[in-house]
Amino acid sequence: MYRTTTCGELRITDVNKQVTLAGWVQRVRKMGGMTFIDLRDRYGITQLAFDQSNPAQAALFDEANKLGREFVIQATGTVRERFSKNDQLPTGDIEIEVTALKVLNPAAVPPFTIEDDTDGGDDLRMRYRYLDLRRQCVRRNLELRHKMAFEVRSYLDKQGFLEVETPVLVNSTPEGARDFVVPSRMNPGTFYALPQSPQILKQLLMVSGFDRYFQIVKCFRDEDLRADRQPEFTQIDCEMSFVEQEDILEMFEGMTRHLFKTIKNIDLPRLPRMTWHDAMKYYGSDKPDTRFEMRFVELMDILQGFGFSVFDNAAYIGGICAKGAAGYSRKQIDQLTDFVKRPQIGAKGLVYARVEQDGTVKSSVDKFYSQQTLQSMKAAFNAEPGDLILILSGDDADKTRKQLSELRLEMGSQLGLRDKNKYSCLWVVDFPMYEWSDEEQRLMAMHHPFTSPKPEDIPLLDTNPAAVRANAYDMVINGVEVGGGSIRIHDAKLQEKVFEILGFTPEQAQAKFGFLMNAFKYGAPPHGGLAYGLDRFVSLFAGLDSIRDCIAFPKNNQGKDVMLGAPGPIDQKQFDELKIRVVEQE
Amino acid sequence: MYRTTTCGELRITDVNKQVTLAGWVQRVRKMGGMTFIDLRDRYGITQLAFDQSNPAQAALFDEANKLGREFVIQATGTVRERFSKNDQLPTGDIEIEVTALKVLNPAAVPPFTIEDDTDGGDDLRMRYRYLDLRRQCVRRNLELRHKMAFEVRSYLDKQGFLEVETPVLVNSTPEGARDFVVPSRMNPGTFYALPQSPQILKQLLMVSGFDRYFQIVKCFRDEDLRADRQPEFTQIDCEMSFVEQEDILEMFEGMTRHLFKTIKNIDLPRLPRMTWHDAMKYYGSDKPDTRFEMRFVELMDILQGFGFSVFDNAAYIGGICAKGAAGYSRKQIDQLTDFVKRPQIGAKGLVYARVEQDGTVKSSVDKFYSQQTLQSMKAAFNAEPGDLILILSGDDADKTRKQLSELRLEMGSQLGLRDKNKYSCLWVVDFPMYEWSDEEQRLMAMHHPFTSPKPEDIPLLDTNPAAVRANAYDMVINGVEVGGGSIRIHDAKLQEKVFEILGFTPEQAQAKFGFLMNAFKYGAPPHGGLAYGLDRFVSLFAGLDSIRDCIAFPKNNQGKDVMLGAPGPIDQKQFDELKIRVVEQE
Repeated sequence: MYRTTTCGELRITDVNKQVTLAGWVQRVRKMGGMTFIDLRDRYGITQLAFDQSNPAQAALFDEANKLGREFVIQATGTVRERFSKNDQLPTGDIEIEVTALKVLNPAAVPPFTIEDDTDGGDDLRMRYRYLDLRRQCVRRNLELRHKMAFEVRSYLDKQGFLEVETPVLVNSTPEGARDFVVPSRMNPGTFYALPQSPQILKQLLMVSGFDRYFQIVKCFRDEDLRADRQPEFTQIDCEMSFVEQEDILEMFEGMTRHLFKTIKNIDLPRLPRMTWHDAMKYYGSDKPDTRFEMRFVELMDILQGFGFSVFDNAAYIGGICAKGAAGYSRKQIDQLTDFVKRPQIGAKGLVYARVEQDGTVKSSVDKFYSQQTLQSMKAAFNAEPGDLILILSGDDADKTRKQLSELRLEMGSQLGLRDKNKYSCLWVVDFPMYEWSDEEQRLMAMHHPFTSPKPEDIPLLDTNPAAVRANAYDMVINGVEVGGGSIRIHDAKLQEKVFEILGFTPEQAQAKFGFLMNAFKYGAPPHGGLAYGLDRFVSLFAGLDSIRDCIAFPKNNQGKDVMLGAPGPIDQKQFDELKIRVVEQE
Repeated sequence: MYRTTTCGELRITDVNKQVTLAGWVQRVRKMGGMTFIDLRDRYGITQLAFDQSNPAQAALFDEANKLGREFVIQATGTVRERFSKNDQLPTGDIEIEVTALKVLNPAAVPPFTIEDDTDGGDDLRMRYRYLDLRRQCVRRNLELRHKMAFEVRSYLDKQGFLEVETPVLVNSTPEGARDFVVPSRMNPGTFYALPQSPQILKQLLMVSGFDRYFQIVKCFRDEDLRADRQPEFTQIDCEMSFVEQEDILEMFEGMTRHLFKTIKNIDLPRLPRMTWHDAMKYYGSDKPDTRFEMRFVELMDILQGFGFSVFDNAAYIGGICAKGAAGYSRKQIDQLTDFVKRPQIGAKGLVYARVEQDGTVKSSVDKFYSQQTLQSMKAAFNAEPGDLILILSGDDADKTRKQLSELRLEMGSQLGLRDKNKYSCLWVVDFPMYEWSDEEQRLMAMHHPFTSPKPEDIPLLDTNPAAVRANAYDMVINGVEVGGGSIRIHDAKLQEKVFEILGFTPEQAQAKFGFLMNAFKYGAPPHGGLAYGLDRFVSLFAGLDSIRDCIAFPKNNQGKDVMLGAPGPIDQKQFDELKIRVVEQE
């Protein structure tokens, strides 16, 4: 037995106990004839004390002074009250008067300091991720991840869900993102694919009568990696039978409430629901950050027709009211203008108006507008003295709303309205079934082609398919889509019609989706489900900016694990067995 | 809402309640003017009743008669007491007098019957696995799997273990089985590998100070598939820091006890421990089935030197005593002889001896042995009248013991001593560090090269490495190795010596294992762990002969998922993007 106690548990009530601890040397402090060592393990830090003038410790004192950072040691001694207490540490009232010391393993000097505030850069820490993971701030995220996954399972188990493992070696799917593939040695020339999600398999489990399925499962997409994407990521994947949309929202609102309660001790209020249409209209986004209001106000009626050609020719004019920001300097407003004109956002310019203390409105386009018109605008925003109104316009309403959404988020950040410790959750519902693709020149499924239309919109499939709303829903927290799903089509005739609108001939539909459609012939129950992104959910709970920090061994933007050196070369023998070759590069 | 209640919950106390059920038509029974439908869902079966003479049901009666097997329906009605009860069903006291019936989805006639005792062959059931999974006997296994995984997590969470997800896209490992590889599109010419186990990553997590790690995780091996192997399988993978072997055995004996208690309501006794040496000596196997005794008795001293050349020239003579089997006919014994002579077993022949009612021994080699010698043999077995002694010999002691082990298991089966509902668990400990490989003409690591020798055997590394025992252990239940692991070497010098004995030069060792050895330089704690095969563990609890039956979507012996059609062809575009091609086959 290497220890009687961990480094996180001793308290003043343990004084005089004989204990043995083991852990890593966090710090050695030499203060005249005394040496103090902070001994660290996962559970905390305990101070070891060595006194040169104590005859029982004389030899140990020299040994202690030789210890380096990150040495692994074992120390036995007596718990005693500290002379100078540390109220930053749960163990800060006590220390160990060490009577025996053993180096279990020495350590080379680590390439960066093992502290929350480390001197190691991103690349270095990734190469030595096993040392980075020693830092408490990193390990905490993984402890949180464990707890969240555990509580998800507890909740779903209690609700009668079965966790069913679906295979990782599956077949390449016809639609969606790019697959990772795995050459089959036993069946040369053929390939497995890694699943982008267990979508089809979970629907099959419903056909099998599993009734309530979930799985916390790795999914894979071979996409060019944007800032916050990983080639492998984890979903909380769920599906239920004999349900309508309301049953699903109820069940998973319950799960979210359970997580907030057990992990953060927050009693989440009932989740508001917002239609996709309202989300786009008032926030310019299908994942609005509702920690703050600052809703869009449309200004076409108020501001068009006064000779300001930018507005007069616009397909959309809209603005936001930044409470109390009238004091923004010319320079600050120029910076906002630069912000919206960045190519990633792409606005042409920014119009602003200040509400002065006397209630008058002073705008950057005063020469076109009377005070009366500006007052109408003020009223539309319910603006008050001290507020700053920011207005964008453009010839594409959707694009302009997206630009305004970016500006809204930026203003929310600047005004301190996006507190990471505050949570605002909602359901966004009534997504459109289809969206028009300029590239493909056809309607595309907004979720996936198995998503069910809202029953009351089914007649519109024949007359105006673009207006059909889906039984699809997303859960949005603080502007992040943490989960989403839909009720699936279980009726073969309806499915055929949906495929037809997507432009598939019956033969194409059969070729692409025939497998699932055939399964449905044997008695498919009404069913639906959703999936949460566990990485994002954890990041949100941890207040992280990147999902990478809640993944033990993440990949970088080139899809590389620089610690493991993956991907890497393979042997000729492996090529031969798999009967594949790498094609010479041009 | 599709239902107010499931098909498994109504009881006599619910009589007169109005309910709505939904599920699959298991069976339609027409009995004169009455039609009964067994409605099935995951939770059970409830009988729906339709009476032609009941005016309120007249129209429904015709509809009900049109329903086919596996139709998905919704039925509303009143719970009433059954006229003829079915005590085989928890819902057998009641039935539903149906007042409304809706077909939610019709069903084509399934290709085999959805019954525990189905008429579908293996291939057909695998092709339509989603229908096979409807059978209660199959679904039960997956419910059990969910429960076992859930209880494993509950236990380990309570013990302070953190579940940490390790990556699926890793690097190809230098030793061990064959890897599945994944071509990298972003880094052409390089490959990820799928992990054979998270061995190195879990050891790194110990270097990171995670202290107690576990993960229920998919692992992958591209091996030619024997009867009970799958290319992807699931491990309960665990590792602990600052532990000795005793700590690990204690912790995981606790987990096993927890599983037996919560899943099977069995209070498992303390697990006996058997040395590997004793296991080989008394059972000829490192995973002895200890549901029954029938230990080997060595007979060299007793039976050599009497002119029976087969025995006189043997390196090993040993036997088992089959209690009460003296009545075996000549034909039965011939069949046993054929059994041990099968090429898979490879014995040359079988000697037997019956203990007669009068205590005399009658053997097949009487002409070489006096009754006195045979009585000595009888005494060595503690044999009694009515027992049958079976003896094998051979010129390779290890091989002969393996043959005798097969014979022992066969006799255990024939005598009904291997009851699937009886469990006998033990630890096999003190495995040898090394085993000699005839093929490689060198010592090989029996577990893996990071396994620690027993401290007291370290001096033997220099003098007689083949005699060194490892701190390695297996948990064996009913002759199945359900888990195993070891204490790892954390001392760099000791690790070097172990590599040296394995025949690696320091350069080779660095090339193969340098990555982990380098990580250890930064302060590795003493650590160890083990992994359970979840598939096997569940099979054992379910009393299954194959792990396939506790996997939702297993692969066949050719590594194929015949339902999904995986592996399959991929597009030219995929080849182009990955910059690989298939080599023409000779």
